[in-house]
Amino acid sequence: MMKTYTVAKAASKGIVMGKAFVAVQEDLTADSRSIKDSEREMEWLKFQKAVKDAVEDLRVLAKDSDIFAAHLDVAEDTVLHDSVELKINSENKNAQLALEETVAEIVTMFESLDDEYLRERAADIKDVGKRIMCGLKGIKSNPFEGINEDVIVVAEDLAPSDTANMDFRYIKGFITEAGGVTSHVSIMARSMEIPAFVGVADFRKNVTNEDYIILDAVGKEIIVNPDEETKEVYRKKAAEYKAMKAEFESMNNLPATTTDGRTVELFANVGSIVDVENAVTRGAEGIGLFRSEFLYMENTKFPTEQEQYDAYKKAIETMKHPVIIRTLDIGGDKELSYYKFDEEENPFLGWRAIRISLDLKDVFKTQLRAILRASAYGDIRIMYPMIISVDEFMAANAILQECKEELRRDNIPFNDSIQTGVMIETPAAVLCAEDLAKVVDFFSIGTNDLTQYLLAVDRGNQKIARLYNSFHPAVLRAIRTVIQAGHKYDKLVGMCGEFASDEKAVPILLGMGLNEFSMAASEIASTRYQIRHLNYEHCQALADEICKKSTIAEVREMLEK
Amino acid sequence: MMKTYTVAKAASKGIVMGKAFVAVQEDLTADSRSIKDSEREMEWLKFQKAVKDAVEDLRVLAKDSDIFAAHLDVAEDTVLHDSVELKINSENKNAQLALEETVAEIVTMFESLDDEYLRERAADIKDVGKRIMCGLKGIKSNPFEGINEDVIVVAEDLAPSDTANMDFRYIKGFITEAGGVTSHVSIMARSMEIPAFVGVADFRKNVTNEDYIILDAVGKEIIVNPDEETKEVYRKKAAEYKAMKAEFESMNNLPATTTDGRTVELFANVGSIVDVENAVTRGAEGIGLFRSEFLYMENTKFPTEQEQYDAYKKAIETMKHPVIIRTLDIGGDKELSYYKFDEEENPFLGWRAIRISLDLKDVFKTQLRAILRASAYGDIRIMYPMIISVDEFMAANAILQECKEELRRDNIPFNDSIQTGVMIETPAAVLCAEDLAKVVDFFSIGTNDLTQYLLAVDRGNQKIARLYNSFHPAVLRAIRTVIQAGHKYDKLVGMCGEFASDEKAVPILLGMGLNEFSMAASEIASTRYQIRHLNYEHCQALADEICKKSTIAEVREMLEK
Repeated sequence: MMKTYTVAKAASKGIVMGKAFVAVQEDLTADSRSIKDSEREMEWLKFQKAVKDAVEDLRVLAKDSDIFAAHLDVAEDTVLHDSVELKINSENKNAQLALEETVAEIVTMFESLDDEYLRERAADIKDVGKRIMCGLKGIKSNPFEGINEDVIVVAEDLAPSDTANMDFRYIKGFITEAGGVTSHVSIMARSMEIPAFVGVADFRKNVTNEDYIILDAVGKEIIVNPDEETKEVYRKKAAEYKAMKAEFESMNNLPATTTDGRTVELFANVGSIVDVENAVTRGAEGIGLFRSEFLYMENTKFPTEQEQYDAYKKAIETMKHPVIIRTLDIGGDKELSYYKFDEEENPFLGWRAIRISLDLKDVFKTQLRAILRASAYGDIRIMYPMIISVDEFMAANAILQECKEELRRDNIPFNDSIQTGVMIETPAAVLCAEDLAKVVDFFSIGTNDLTQYLLAVDRGNQKIARLYNSFHPAVLRAIRTVIQAGHKYDKLVGMCGEFASDEKAVPILLGMGLNEFSMAASEIASTRYQIRHLNYEHCQALADEICKKSTIAEVREMLEK
Repeated sequence: MMKTYTVAKAASKGIVMGKAFVAVQEDLTADSRSIKDSEREMEWLKFQKAVKDAVEDLRVLAKDSDIFAAHLDVAEDTVLHDSVELKINSENKNAQLALEETVAEIVTMFESLDDEYLRERAADIKDVGKRIMCGLKGIKSNPFEGINEDVIVVAEDLAPSDTANMDFRYIKGFITEAGGVTSHVSIMARSMEIPAFVGVADFRKNVTNEDYIILDAVGKEIIVNPDEETKEVYRKKAAEYKAMKAEFESMNNLPATTTDGRTVELFANVGSIVDVENAVTRGAEGIGLFRSEFLYMENTKFPTEQEQYDAYKKAIETMKHPVIIRTLDIGGDKELSYYKFDEEENPFLGWRAIRISLDLKDVFKTQLRAILRASAYGDIRIMYPMIISVDEFMAANAILQECKEELRRDNIPFNDSIQTGVMIETPAAVLCAEDLAKVVDFFSIGTNDLTQYLLAVDRGNQKIARLYNSFHPAVLRAIRTVIQAGHKYDKLVGMCGEFASDEKAVPILLGMGLNEFSMAASEIASTRYQIRHLNYEHCQALADEICKKSTIAEVREMLEK
């Protein structure tokens, strides 16, 4: 029977179809038992065989990945082998139990050490342990092996080691129960252009491998067991979508210019070096938001100046156009595994972003020095997040000045006239926009947080989700105020929230005079297409009119027209 | 040796001195033991004697207090006596253990029942149990008994039963380690005009009963063991403060009019009916903020329409001038014992105030009907908290309209032209102030929350306390915007945050044109005095100038002049 499920939000757009492939979560705990002396030999052989298979797989994977090269080292490590052998031969444990205990012991030991490198290895040992356990239990360590027809993968979640093993000739789409739009699987899906829905709670119970799925991550529907007629409709839709995408992409090298000649910049938001490469491919004219926190969050300690410098240099060399680096934006809902944050009653109104940087001056200076050094290689700009006052901007720039003087003294090259700007994402910054415009080089409006603070609505709180609305008159007026303030002092104003690629928002923002639209790279082509079909003068009139609306209801009505 | 401690904030102002009296937290657990048959008689007599003493004390206290009248009933209850007797005579337990077990059993039973009245009684039983236990252990149940010289009480915290027992001829001031400015002891201290500091962490370790203390809750200092010279200085200060207060209070019947003839209204914020009486005594010209949540928070269920009606009627009959009732403002940091709130990541950005009222329509209607009915007795006005849009105000008023129609149908009198206004405490309301001004009857600016949301700083978060500042340029400008918007449509604008009684803020607010200043009743006299010595035109110039300042530093510098 055909069934249709509506999903709120696509992690990666597109329309695909295929058989359901429900990824099974295998039980990897040891079937533990004591063995007789006579069984020792057999158990030890089993273990050696499982290691040999794991090593062979890892040799292949290691060619393209540093992670798997590290795993290979672990799998061949004699400490691991010796310990398992001892447990089999002296303690009469079967191979599975010997492996489980050994892995647990090594992990505990490594995790207790005051050595970050070894602590990091603990995760590798766990992964390799799982791989060998799969061999011992006769479970395929790659559940996606042998797929040879078009499938839509339905899983609880997908880890990097899962997606690394996939054959994308046949795997056409993902539906996961866990994850948000910024989780690994979402980012990977967008960069591979695999249509995907994530965070679809409890979806696995709706399908088995006998079912057929249409995944419409444009119209936001999942259709299980469609009839032939429906399949045909969606085959056509998919073809149209593909054609439209091709048309969008054919404009990749054209500027985002309206029919009456107003040109704006289309930048990308990125959260990894891979994202930067993807942004270039997708026609981004710069990076409007380089989320530097990934360097901190994917690490086991504060990243060194050199590590950061390498990343920033790589980014600007890849992009070759402006790269706006947002300084560390943690706190709120973003934590670090290696730094203890105090519990806060309201973390979104707490110690976060620039507040942390100004308090942890050494951490901030390390980042600023790295950015400055990389600025010798191109147009890198610095953006401070969560600014609420001119005072804070000045304090941050004073620390930047210290860094510049240190570099100058040491004859290390950097761009002395590096631009510094601020995120406008607090109501205070909106009300002080003119004062800020006098002293900064640029603004970038962060609509997600700005909406949250203006409306006093936590954007993650389901209970009041209906109140979170960037088309609220207060938000629209705040955006216009900021743009006008920036322009009064000849400063460019950008936006790096999701709103900048919202189809209904683009004409309004364009009409308000926004200069730079920064968005997920996957949105650039369609936004460019839209802007190239808009008339700036009409958009100006639209923006004026919508800002006069007194109520949310009136705005909604106008948008629906 | 003389030592001086500086305290951030006084709970109740004044300057007093006396010997330290450190309240000891007695151990009230039973010294439990088994007794011989021959001891039964003695233990039972001990218990009867302790009950008799408790009953005598409670008879005296019950004359002035319903709480103690209820305690008296419990102390005389035969269930309690029978159970203790049984445990002594059949189980050979000593009186203390028999009492402890009996109280625990009754409390457990009552708390498990689905009867709110009985659940409430559990607290009374615990209190009475403590009182009898004091008798059995030979501990004074009133630790403040027998004080016959001037003392400053230093305690961990002070409960209603503690302060009810105090002889204020000798007890001159309080210092407690627990509590905030809105805790019981603070409210009691202000209404009794006892100078007090609360929330002074770990202070007990600094003093013994041998020490002497000057408590300066004007200059915000505690001086332990002052020399004679210092004492003399503070005796003079205390006399001056007293004289100044007398001068302030001599103006209680005069309007708050500036030297050049601008008159504003001085209203009080209240959180109980006693507060309303106090407000009248202190010269309040109305109630600017009636915190209706106390009716909900001090209850074991949602208060009935009749209970609320009685309270609102009592308030307007006591005040005889305008009473602005803020509808239920729970959520955030305010919870109800009888209603389960979901856990929220950021409760200040969550389901609170008007959001709850609009979602729990029945609860809201009960309150609105009670307010409407009381409005037949005087100038009661309705104020909705946490409004972020015109839409919300209209939705609330639509429900009010329903209530009016119901009352009309039932021929119940009410004031059909009752005024409805909004708290301006979200940035969205500031940005929509003109739209709101068109439809509301009045504004009241809530500076505490407004500052918190504008600056994205949780006002309870110590780690970023330095950022919380209502003199931030964004806050000052927001206030001015709201006042101007209100006046543009001939609506009166008040303020009911702490800022309205801040000595440095008053001239600025006056200059901006604020019409109504609502504050703790204890602040009214000094604010009236201040306003009567200010010149409106000068204040206008000051307000204009301060709103032009670009940085917090510039504002601070100007304030210091």
